[in-house]
Amino acid sequence: MAQGLSPAIDALVDDLKRLPGVGQKTAQRMAFYLLERDRQGALALSASLQQAADRVGHCQQCRTLTEEALCRICANPARRESGVVCIVETPADVLAIEQTSQFKGRYFVLMGHLSPLDGIGPADIGLDELELQLKQGPVEEIILATNPTVEGDATAHYIADIAEQLGINTTRIAHGVPVGGELGYVDQTTLGHAFSGRKQFSR
Amino acid sequence: MAQGLSPAIDALVDDLKRLPGVGQKTAQRMAFYLLERDRQGALALSASLQQAADRVGHCQQCRTLTEEALCRICANPARRESGVVCIVETPADVLAIEQTSQFKGRYFVLMGHLSPLDGIGPADIGLDELELQLKQGPVEEIILATNPTVEGDATAHYIADIAEQLGINTTRIAHGVPVGGELGYVDQTTLGHAFSGRKQFSR
Repeated sequence: MAQGLSPAIDALVDDLKRLPGVGQKTAQRMAFYLLERDRQGALALSASLQQAADRVGHCQQCRTLTEEALCRICANPARRESGVVCIVETPADVLAIEQTSQFKGRYFVLMGHLSPLDGIGPADIGLDELELQLKQGPVEEIILATNPTVEGDATAHYIADIAEQLGINTTRIAHGVPVGGELGYVDQTTLGHAFSGRKQFSR
Repeated sequence: MAQGLSPAIDALVDDLKRLPGVGQKTAQRMAFYLLERDRQGALALSASLQQAADRVGHCQQCRTLTEEALCRICANPARRESGVVCIVETPADVLAIEQTSQFKGRYFVLMGHLSPLDGIGPADIGLDELELQLKQGPVEEIILATNPTVEGDATAHYIADIAEQLGINTTRIAHGVPVGGELGYVDQTTLGHAFSGRKQFSR
């Protein structure tokens, strides 16, 4: 409990501290900013928090967060029936990939990754639902875009096994040196991936 | 307008971006965190934002933010009648000084500083009210704790002039090398203050 100036301000600071990456000082700064400079903003944020918390659920097809039955991408017939499914861990990954404008298929959002130590198994990340969808619709390719971490790789392998049994072509996004990065600052594993994944140089 | 997954999430991300120091990526992370992990927290934050924005005003005596007529400090008779007034720019400064537990007097919060270029004059930072209070009650000492910036120093000088006319003793908090700091990293002005403000070494 923060010892501030008044109960209402203390409560606001405490609740702002629930936000990821926000500690006591930042929460105080946010609270004072809203109260001194942007009361309208505070009320708008209050309303949108309540609306989102009350209404947002999961997309029936891809499991991402949305307040509608189908998310914007799944609601688009061209994308829903494209036959290419990109598997990602979080809704934030969907937004990141959408910003590249390179992918025109649909997504399946795991909302996590396999983590047996935390008791998170295939059903918890919707792999039973994914298998059902792969059996139902014609799917030409699965693009595995889980994070390049131990858990993300394990999850990718697990999904690749399912896809293989169903005879679906499976690819993994490329790992290598980030564009604009300097070799000296890239870690060994990434550099190893960059070498093993090298491509013919084309002029 | 963020192009996200659904209108409710987009609105939440946009409103989170009103918070100081929060950009698109951080707002997305906050929104997804609240929706995936802490719906109760989102609702609690929504309620405390609304309550604070609706109810918080200014303390009748010291002008700090509070939803009551008098803030916690001014409501304490021992402090209200202490005869020592510390002048600060913001409510956050009050909290910072309170954490030292060294000051037992009362505060006067300017909610800003003199800034003629921005059209902020003495009345806008409550100096008319301060002068009234100084004339009414017996005040032994004014401690000027405005920021050591050009505007803060100018404001301190202005208040010192008022206090001099009323025959009230005025002090300024010490400027010097921060405890734990290294001389090599301290700027010239601060080091200059540290030398001109040196004290007899006592063993």
